[in-house]
Amino acid sequence: MRVAGLISGTSVDGIDVAVVDIGESIRVVATATFPYPPDVRATILSVSNATTHTATIARLNFLLGELFAEAVMKSGVPLETIDLIGSHGQTIFHEGEPVEFLGRKIASTLQIGEAAVIAERTGIETIADFRTGDIAAGGKGAPLVPFLDHQLFRHPELARVALNIGGIANITVIPPNAAPDQVIAFDTGPGNMVMDAVAPPFDRDGALARTGRVNEALLGQLLADPYYHRDPPKSCGREQFGAEFIRDTGIDIATSTELTARTIALAIAGYPATREVIVSGGGAHNSYLMERLAALLRARVTTSEEFGIGVDSKEASLFALLAYQTHQGRPGNLPSATGARKPVILGKISRGTKPSPGA
Amino acid sequence: MRVAGLISGTSVDGIDVAVVDIGESIRVVATATFPYPPDVRATILSVSNATTHTATIARLNFLLGELFAEAVMKSGVPLETIDLIGSHGQTIFHEGEPVEFLGRKIASTLQIGEAAVIAERTGIETIADFRTGDIAAGGKGAPLVPFLDHQLFRHPELARVALNIGGIANITVIPPNAAPDQVIAFDTGPGNMVMDAVAPPFDRDGALARTGRVNEALLGQLLADPYYHRDPPKSCGREQFGAEFIRDTGIDIATSTELTARTIALAIAGYPATREVIVSGGGAHNSYLMERLAALLRARVTTSEEFGIGVDSKEASLFALLAYQTHQGRPGNLPSATGARKPVILGKISRGTKPSPGA
Repeated sequence: MRVAGLISGTSVDGIDVAVVDIGESIRVVATATFPYPPDVRATILSVSNATTHTATIARLNFLLGELFAEAVMKSGVPLETIDLIGSHGQTIFHEGEPVEFLGRKIASTLQIGEAAVIAERTGIETIADFRTGDIAAGGKGAPLVPFLDHQLFRHPELARVALNIGGIANITVIPPNAAPDQVIAFDTGPGNMVMDAVAPPFDRDGALARTGRVNEALLGQLLADPYYHRDPPKSCGREQFGAEFIRDTGIDIATSTELTARTIALAIAGYPATREVIVSGGGAHNSYLMERLAALLRARVTTSEEFGIGVDSKEASLFALLAYQTHQGRPGNLPSATGARKPVILGKISRGTKPSPGA
Repeated sequence: MRVAGLISGTSVDGIDVAVVDIGESIRVVATATFPYPPDVRATILSVSNATTHTATIARLNFLLGELFAEAVMKSGVPLETIDLIGSHGQTIFHEGEPVEFLGRKIASTLQIGEAAVIAERTGIETIADFRTGDIAAGGKGAPLVPFLDHQLFRHPELARVALNIGGIANITVIPPNAAPDQVIAFDTGPGNMVMDAVAPPFDRDGALARTGRVNEALLGQLLADPYYHRDPPKSCGREQFGAEFIRDTGIDIATSTELTARTIALAIAGYPATREVIVSGGGAHNSYLMERLAALLRARVTTSEEFGIGVDSKEASLFALLAYQTHQGRPGNLPSATGARKPVILGKISRGTKPSPGA
């Protein structure tokens, strides 16, 4: 089955598409990225974990549906060969830990990018909203990528860690020949979100961080945050590392890059058997950050390219795989990673106008 | 197939449930209404077409999912006998007419009440988000009730109008022996939304309106609103008849009741062949409003009770029927009513943990 996966990550750069053939194995057919127009990006950031008007959220949801649909149509793969679409959408709020709300404990997440629009424009059955089902089952709705990591990177003898450096950085710990419930995964802390905010649009190759000076006093304070020392499962987002964090800490690019590297290394140090760290996400392009990781980690550092998955398309490939799972009536979360009570069939299915792909 | 339908309407009173057996015919098995706790209702009103925090929308979406699930569980029908749930959710924004937004023309709608939570708590496959697909196909996302009206009230020889007086009032015009594309439906204007706002929580039996005095000057001005004189399809909502309308017009209960009756009569006068008007919705309990309608209309006025559908459960029954349609892979919108380019399969399917009902 040919499935298109779609995501725009927490760094809100644009829409990543991966078209993937899924059967016995997973083969990436095409990938593409479509940056958001600046006014769209600014509007997304203005509504993310922020005060806004309901109208803006509603309209943006439909507008992003159009852009996500266009991303599939411009991916270069003939639309009539695509059987299914899996769309993560754009997260504008995520709170995996329950909070007190109107007398109940409520965890929640909110992704936009209207799937009904994607299904209508493309004619293709579209599955979206993959995080809500995990939260409904008591999980944190994140991370979801361990499901793909486990399928792709499990090794009969080697202990591996898959590291994704998106807006937030997260790791998947995969023991040798791991069963699904032996996989551990969690957000390590900030990824590109803080670095990009202090050196917009981003610090190419980490050049600014390389020549800057780390504020050791601030770094020490930040590393004392209990989040880094808490046991998984745990997840974080723009709520912790957004505009308020930048403003309150006055952090610079050298310090934020070192904070990212050190919090990743701290997390991986908890799994001393690790022999290989497989990096993906935009942070994999940051050669200074990659050097810092190689220096801090006691393991071989490589990228997902070695396994046929471009560093920028792992998450999009994940949502293709998760849509496939849902279409087959199979769960897509790893409870050991998200903290859910059980595996659940994720996502919501919007029918397209093409005949449904055979189950 | 036994299907539970769920809705909370624009008047934000609480959750209506209708459990319906659907096969050759439609039979209502049970109905119930669960008023919202006051703090929940206040929070919904505070986010509806208003400035709010994304966190509030996200948390409220999950909280309402819990309340919608509990409504099914408390309906008195054994959960294990229910095969499918159709949930409209709670509208917090609706804009059927496209507006300019970031360089595009965008129509949008936003319902909350997380379906993944409903599916997880009940174990039952849940279909929700019925308006988005119609908007994606160029429709106004409303009204949807004509689909049910056409199935239930079509008569071989009589021209009928189904009138629902919820927060907004709407009519479905059903010519004798009408084909789906001969059905016309639209929102006539305010329903209980304005009356309830000026005489909270509501004007029982229309007693206040009956003894009050209509402000004829204001009524005349309001009736000149081009909305009432425009050809269908058209829809309206809290955007036109919410807090701003109340404040700007200073309308009272007698005038708002008369405005409701007159705008309904004005709309029905456009279809002079009408022989019967079948009323449903909370407004059917307002005996003064019903008297005014009987006086203004040249047709027999009755209620949906005559057809086995309680006046308070027609909309909930609709979402049971629409879920059934989607489950069967069949469209649920009437393009002649919504303005959509074509019939589409509405809604998004969240899988439950019970074995899927046989298609």
